[in-house]
Amino acid sequence: MEFLILHGPNLNLLGQREPEVYGSLTLDDINDRIKEHALARSVTVRIQQSNHEGVLIDTLHIARNWAGGVVMNPGAYTHTSIALRDAIASIDLPVVEVHLSNIHARESFRHRSMLAAVCLGQICGFGWRSYILGMDALLGHLGLL
Amino acid sequence: MEFLILHGPNLNLLGQREPEVYGSLTLDDINDRIKEHALARSVTVRIQQSNHEGVLIDTLHIARNWAGGVVMNPGAYTHTSIALRDAIASIDLPVVEVHLSNIHARESFRHRSMLAAVCLGQICGFGWRSYILGMDALLGHLGLL
Amino acid sequence: MEFLILHGPNLNLLGQREPEVYGSLTLDDINDRIKEHALARSVTVRIQQSNHEGVLIDTLHIARNWAGGVVMNPGAYTHTSIALRDAIASIDLPVVEVHLSNIHARESFRHRSMLAAVCLGQICGFGWRSYILGMDALLGHLGLL
Amino acid sequence: MEFLILHGPNLNLLGQREPEVYGSLTLDDINDRIKEHALARSVTVRIQQSNHEGVLIDTLHIARNWAGGVVMNPGAYTHTSIALRDAIASIDLPVVEVHLSNIHARESFRHRSMLAAVCLGQICGFGWRSYILGMDALLGHLGLL
Amino acid sequence: MEFLILHGPNLNLLGQREPEVYGSLTLDDINDRIKEHALARSVTVRIQQSNHEGVLIDTLHIARNWAGGVVMNPGAYTHTSIALRDAIASIDLPVVEVHLSNIHARESFRHRSMLAAVCLGQICGFGWRSYILGMDALLGHLGLL
Amino acid sequence: MEFLILHGPNLNLLGQREPEVYGSLTLDDINDRIKEHALARSVTVRIQQSNHEGVLIDTLHIARNWAGGVVMNPGAYTHTSIALRDAIASIDLPVVEVHLSNIHARESFRHRSMLAAVCLGQICGFGWRSYILGMDALLGHLGLL
Amino acid sequence: MEFLILHGPNLNLLGQREPEVYGSLTLDDINDRIKEHALARSVTVRIQQSNHEGVLIDTLHIARNWAGGVVMNPGAYTHTSIALRDAIASIDLPVVEVHLSNIHARESFRHRSMLAAVCLGQICGFGWRSYILGMDALLGHLGLL
Amino acid sequence: MEFLILHGPNLNLLGQREPEVYGSLTLDDINDRIKEHALARSVTVRIQQSNHEGVLIDTLHIARNWAGGVVMNPGAYTHTSIALRDAIASIDLPVVEVHLSNIHARESFRHRSMLAAVCLGQICGFGWRSYILGMDALLGHLGLL
Amino acid sequence: MEFLILHGPNLNLLGQREPEVYGSLTLDDINDRIKEHALARSVTVRIQQSNHEGVLIDTLHIARNWAGGVVMNPGAYTHTSIALRDAIASIDLPVVEVHLSNIHARESFRHRSMLAAVCLGQICGFGWRSYILGMDALLGHLGLL
Amino acid sequence: MEFLILHGPNLNLLGQREPEVYGSLTLDDINDRIKEHALARSVTVRIQQSNHEGVLIDTLHIARNWAGGVVMNPGAYTHTSIALRDAIASIDLPVVEVHLSNIHARESFRHRSMLAAVCLGQICGFGWRSYILGMDALLGHLGLL
Amino acid sequence: MEFLILHGPNLNLLGQREPEVYGSLTLDDINDRIKEHALARSVTVRIQQSNHEGVLIDTLHIARNWAGGVVMNPGAYTHTSIALRDAIASIDLPVVEVHLSNIHARESFRHRSMLAAVCLGQICGFGWRSYILGMDALLGHLGLL
Amino acid sequence: MEFLILHGPNLNLLGQREPEVYGSLTLDDINDRIKEHALARSVTVRIQQSNHEGVLIDTLHIARNWAGGVVMNPGAYTHTSIALRDAIASIDLPVVEVHLSNIHARESFRHRSMLAAVCLGQICGFGWRSYILGMDALLGHLGLL
Repeated sequence: MEFLILHGPNLNLLGQREPEVYGSLTLDDINDRIKEHALARSVTVRIQQSNHEGVLIDTLHIARNWAGGVVMNPGAYTHTSIALRDAIASIDLPVVEVHLSNIHARESFRHRSMLAAVCLGQICGFGWRSYILGMDALLGHLGLL
Repeated sequence: MEFLILHGPNLNLLGQREPEVYGSLTLDDINDRIKEHALARSVTVRIQQSNHEGVLIDTLHIARNWAGGVVMNPGAYTHTSIALRDAIASIDLPVVEVHLSNIHARESFRHRSMLAAVCLGQICGFGWRSYILGMDALLGHLGLL
Repeated sequence: MEFLILHGPNLNLLGQREPEVYGSLTLDDINDRIKEHALARSVTVRIQQSNHEGVLIDTLHIARNWAGGVVMNPGAYTHTSIALRDAIASIDLPVVEVHLSNIHARESFRHRSMLAAVCLGQICGFGWRSYILGMDALLGHLGLL
Repeated sequence: MEFLILHGPNLNLLGQREPEVYGSLTLDDINDRIKEHALARSVTVRIQQSNHEGVLIDTLHIARNWAGGVVMNPGAYTHTSIALRDAIASIDLPVVEVHLSNIHARESFRHRSMLAAVCLGQICGFGWRSYILGMDALLGHLGLL
Repeated sequence: MEFLILHGPNLNLLGQREPEVYGSLTLDDINDRIKEHALARSVTVRIQQSNHEGVLIDTLHIARNWAGGVVMNPGAYTHTSIALRDAIASIDLPVVEVHLSNIHARESFRHRSMLAAVCLGQICGFGWRSYILGMDALLGHLGLL
Repeated sequence: MEFLILHGPNLNLLGQREPEVYGSLTLDDINDRIKEHALARSVTVRIQQSNHEGVLIDTLHIARNWAGGVVMNPGAYTHTSIALRDAIASIDLPVVEVHLSNIHARESFRHRSMLAAVCLGQICGFGWRSYILGMDALLGHLGLL
Repeated sequence: MEFLILHGPNLNLLGQREPEVYGSLTLDDINDRIKEHALARSVTVRIQQSNHEGVLIDTLHIARNWAGGVVMNPGAYTHTSIALRDAIASIDLPVVEVHLSNIHARESFRHRSMLAAVCLGQICGFGWRSYILGMDALLGHLGLL
Repeated sequence: MEFLILHGPNLNLLGQREPEVYGSLTLDDINDRIKEHALARSVTVRIQQSNHEGVLIDTLHIARNWAGGVVMNPGAYTHTSIALRDAIASIDLPVVEVHLSNIHARESFRHRSMLAAVCLGQICGFGWRSYILGMDALLGHLGLL
Repeated sequence: MEFLILHGPNLNLLGQREPEVYGSLTLDDINDRIKEHALARSVTVRIQQSNHEGVLIDTLHIARNWAGGVVMNPGAYTHTSIALRDAIASIDLPVVEVHLSNIHARESFRHRSMLAAVCLGQICGFGWRSYILGMDALLGHLGLL
Repeated sequence: MEFLILHGPNLNLLGQREPEVYGSLTLDDINDRIKEHALARSVTVRIQQSNHEGVLIDTLHIARNWAGGVVMNPGAYTHTSIALRDAIASIDLPVVEVHLSNIHARESFRHRSMLAAVCLGQICGFGWRSYILGMDALLGHLGLL
Repeated sequence: MEFLILHGPNLNLLGQREPEVYGSLTLDDINDRIKEHALARSVTVRIQQSNHEGVLIDTLHIARNWAGGVVMNPGAYTHTSIALRDAIASIDLPVVEVHLSNIHARESFRHRSMLAAVCLGQICGFGWRSYILGMDALLGHLGLL
Repeated sequence: MEFLILHGPNLNLLGQREPEVYGSLTLDDINDRIKEHALARSVTVRIQQSNHEGVLIDTLHIARNWAGGVVMNPGAYTHTSIALRDAIASIDLPVVEVHLSNIHARESFRHRSMLAAVCLGQICGFGWRSYILGMDALLGHLGLL
């Protein structure tokens, strides 16, 4: 089983960016924990990050051909991108939306997700653990946990 | 470590109620899986269900004295109850909000949570596994996982 | 055939409460007329009133086991309670929503019913006769009139 | 006692029009049942249908001179016509608004009635029986039932 | 100089209709005063009333061929009819919108006029005198007063 | 009979200010026509202009003691001033709201009048003639025309 | 194959009405081009225009019996008429909504179509060619082009 | 003279709950001050607290039989409960709404009170003194101060 | 201890202005009661009234230099004046907002206070006693009662 | 004459993506039909697809130098991209907006086009034929059909 | 070249008022820097401050006769005053709107400027330097820099 | 000191694009003036333009490593891009938002900036001089002017 772990815009700056909101771990730190958990669960992960909406869409399209599921932190595109929503609806893969921060406790324009309705579900507020929980949610959904 | 697992209104009818939305497991089935997972994680759980907003508030108040965390499926009160929000904010316990269904994919009045902003985070859309993930999220937050 | 007649909050004060809006009959007066009509229609009725949202939900749940239909005046909970809506959707019974007053001719926050969408239909504005018409609507729906 | 039964736009197509919403009875079938019930209640009915807002207004105006009450299914004009609202308010007759379908369970633009506030009350969701219940509601209001 | 005086829906019931809002004069009474004023101002008037939006539109279209201006009380169509708005914009005639009652002091859905933006101006709140003032406004605009 | 003619903010610049909206007459020109018409109608007028909301309120208060009615062009305060609304409601005088331009054909924030609901009526769109028509409206209301 | 070409309110004034918006062709000019195109496509067309919402509904109802499809320019009723929407939904015919002008580039109240959701599709902004394109769209839909 | 002092949801946790918002006094401390002030004013008070909307309604109903007035802090139900509003309107007692915190300086969903419109008045922002001021307001209203 | 008692627009007309809303006492009557209460509480009061927003701001600014607190009835400026809000926030004095009438039971545009968020608290609905309660609230806040 | 045919995000997945909404043709199938029609109309077409908003903008900019017109299906960017709107307004080319599906019959966030106002017109709901009709619309506009 | 520098309400308290928002400079300090910069740019400035909306309007009117441009910090009137907007539109002078604080980063009611649309442009967020930049913007616009 | 000058979408077409809105200078012309001013201020500038939201984000991220500040004209992304907002908040650099045109005087969807709240301030309406003023604003903020 292979999963795509997809990080959206500005997540490459983690650790440096507003640490009081996003914590002090860098993206590499988080990716290490994701890989470690994948190993423990016998899952292979491919991890990508992009600040480009179009690249995120392309990456999802390609994942149709190899991935068994996606854990995606769409960052700010969560709230604005109908194109990403359509991309998720277009591919025949289960997608779990995750967020480091509790988006419902922040500015009101972050409360609405344009994507959640076409995802399997949403997990937010648990820092890097949101990804771990998202992977477990995917595995559970696929009957592998 | 003891956790309160709190089920809100109408969840006692699970299995009979709109199975196309909520699945065919009964609340007892789900509680069994919760207990099984708790055992595996060496956590004690007390499980309660009520259709009464006031009882849910009372239960949260009492949990201050014994629980280390709460996994709560507030059901329909998610969207309307400021009193429950204040109850969560009043007690000094981490609370994880969980939902069986993906509330963001349903009627628009189910998209807004009055509670999420005062919870640790929100997990929705994974059926009975939302509770399991919620327990893991709590444990992770408490540094026990 | 047995029907549940369910009165919501503040209806116990009928006759004393704002008679220019709700008329001068007491709840007992209305219940007498309901029983009288039930007798004429060869229906048994069980009548309950509560000011507690949770009790109304519990009562609907229990009615699944004995009632053939429900005539419900949800009072103010009409406009705010998603939990009652879910309760109605959860039970496999036809429910008719009735109101003494014409809710569409009152304050704008009384125009919207959170419940009507999951009921068989809505009858409002005919005083105590709304209940009588609601019973006939149920009977008609069940092919008994 | 004479009643006007007034059918609004598109009701002439009943039976052919979206039967999953409106049922398979034709308008003639419904009119037969209305007449039958009128006979049983010793009421005379005059039945009219029009797709023209202006004709509906004219008909209501004329009814001032002969009718004791009106049962009206305003169809789509329910949601848009202030002119019909004014017509109802202009005549000194009790008017009951009825609908075949449960308008509160359909598109949101059908939830609001511009007319209900100047009618005696509203009955919706009971198919052809909505008319029968409307006639009984009128009779009750007039002290004849 | 010939003017069209155009009365919209329900104005034929004046005097009988809600006299606390519209006064006790009948439409004939008002028309007499309009004619009297027209005589004093050496204007010819043609007066029409209709409850049909389509007839009002047709009448405006025809007026292009003979009238020098229009005084129109569009009644309830004021607030809903884009078709009447387009009719006014389509003809090359000055139109004054008048109302018996002060529409800005009534229900909020009567505050907005769909028509005023394409009329010369709006006069409301002066009972039958609104028509008289409207005629003078037209004459002034045409340089005849 | 004495009338107060009250001009609101920026009307002192008439003739110089946006002539394509307000015409090329100066305020003095308009006042001359008002006085001329007053003479013809045997009315005395006192004319005041202020850019100060407070002065307009004070002026209305004082008018209680001497005026028989008010013709007021509240300018931009029309759309924002609840204080002026209360001033008009506080004094026991008929007030006619007038506007040079057709406020309903301009920016949407000019469509709503905070004042019209407590005035006798509103006249707009007829340039300086709006004042003349307002005076006639007042005289008519007082039974003097 | 026979098509109904249905023109809504005010279209009879084309050529005279706001030519900067609607062009200088008269309705007869446009009808000639429609007929010419119909001839080229071997389609028979019946063309009707009405300013009456009710007549438009009646015409659609009758078309059920003879037409294979409808090209309709609903004019201003596009934005307000739920009754026309229901008429389209009631008949079992493909309907294409067309507009001369680009309604999305005009006042905001012209952006929303109440009808488009029950039509096959919408074509707007191409002047008289919108009708031609609408006929081709119908033919394509019917597999005739 | 006897007053009901009614505390709503979560007020039982005062002193422990968000002291930066609600202060450090416990509910018992506040009740002591209320009783002390009652003594000074020669008023008897009965004090109740509940987290249950239904219990609050029941308590108000019963108070009809013994109380001369009510000072009520409805807590979070202030903003959501039409049922409590109806309960207040149903009983023939003066009710003063009080709040410890300044609700207008908090989250926007706390700015609107569903209850204030049927209360005598509202007092908020003065901590425990809001109750004292509320008692004096009641006494003043009853002519006893 | 010296307090500023500040009356906003139109309060100078009290007693004459809409007595059904504001009572029959004049401003002088109310001021006498304020002074009497001040005497009883050993407070000195300076009382001012103005219809000018700017004068109210100036008066607040000056009060920084001599007053220990402010009781202010901002009248209609309550709902519109951000400038007054900034003035209150600019001075380092506790300000209590009071209203004679229950603003929450009146027109919806009177429900929102632009000022309350920067005041100590709000008291409304108790007629002249609102001022007395406001003075006591100030004294309590300052630890003098 | 050369046209740019521009496909927006996710259209590369056509045929695989939600065929119940978009049909079973692939983008290559559609492009073949476009080319075939171009040949029949003696037009040259260059066809491009991108999931990147920026690439779509760049492509439009470049088209200024070679294209005579654009047929564009902006996909999801239709509803969110002001940048694309500005790109269309920036280039001096006629652009026709087309959609495979009837966007007005789908989720409400798909009803509004940010682009239509700066396009020649909009065609939606006719599957691959929308492109064909769009090409004919362009040709008609350019006087070539 | 002479410029008017116009300070709106509450700016006279600068330095004392909320220094965390507005900085610690007094208005005199800022005026000194404005004068210094004016000297360096060979511009004469007249500086005025008022808390009165009417005085600000009067000052702008008078400036027509002597000033070559205006740098205005309208303070709280920015968000509410249509009268000031009309004043700016009435005079034939370039006006630059400036703000000390970044109004877009504060409460949402400070995000909208009623004035910016009739000003040359807006500069905000740079403390006292906003005035300096505003003067340079004016000079640039006038071709003097 | 080095500054990043960042131009957003469609600015590469300046001079050709809607010159009545944006002026006739090309982007190269503007860049020349920016460089000239930089020289005069002894600042080094790097200038970039992109139509790609992702490229703009990447560029801001990289600027963290070399720039002392940013002057950014985000073009249309100003109004829609939360991702750019997060990018600005993520980097520890002062950013000044500038616009050529007065965005507050254009379509209402251009009035709101998603970015201004995380920028130092906003300057708009002064054509190419907005950039010059933005550079001076940055220098002033950094204490270099």
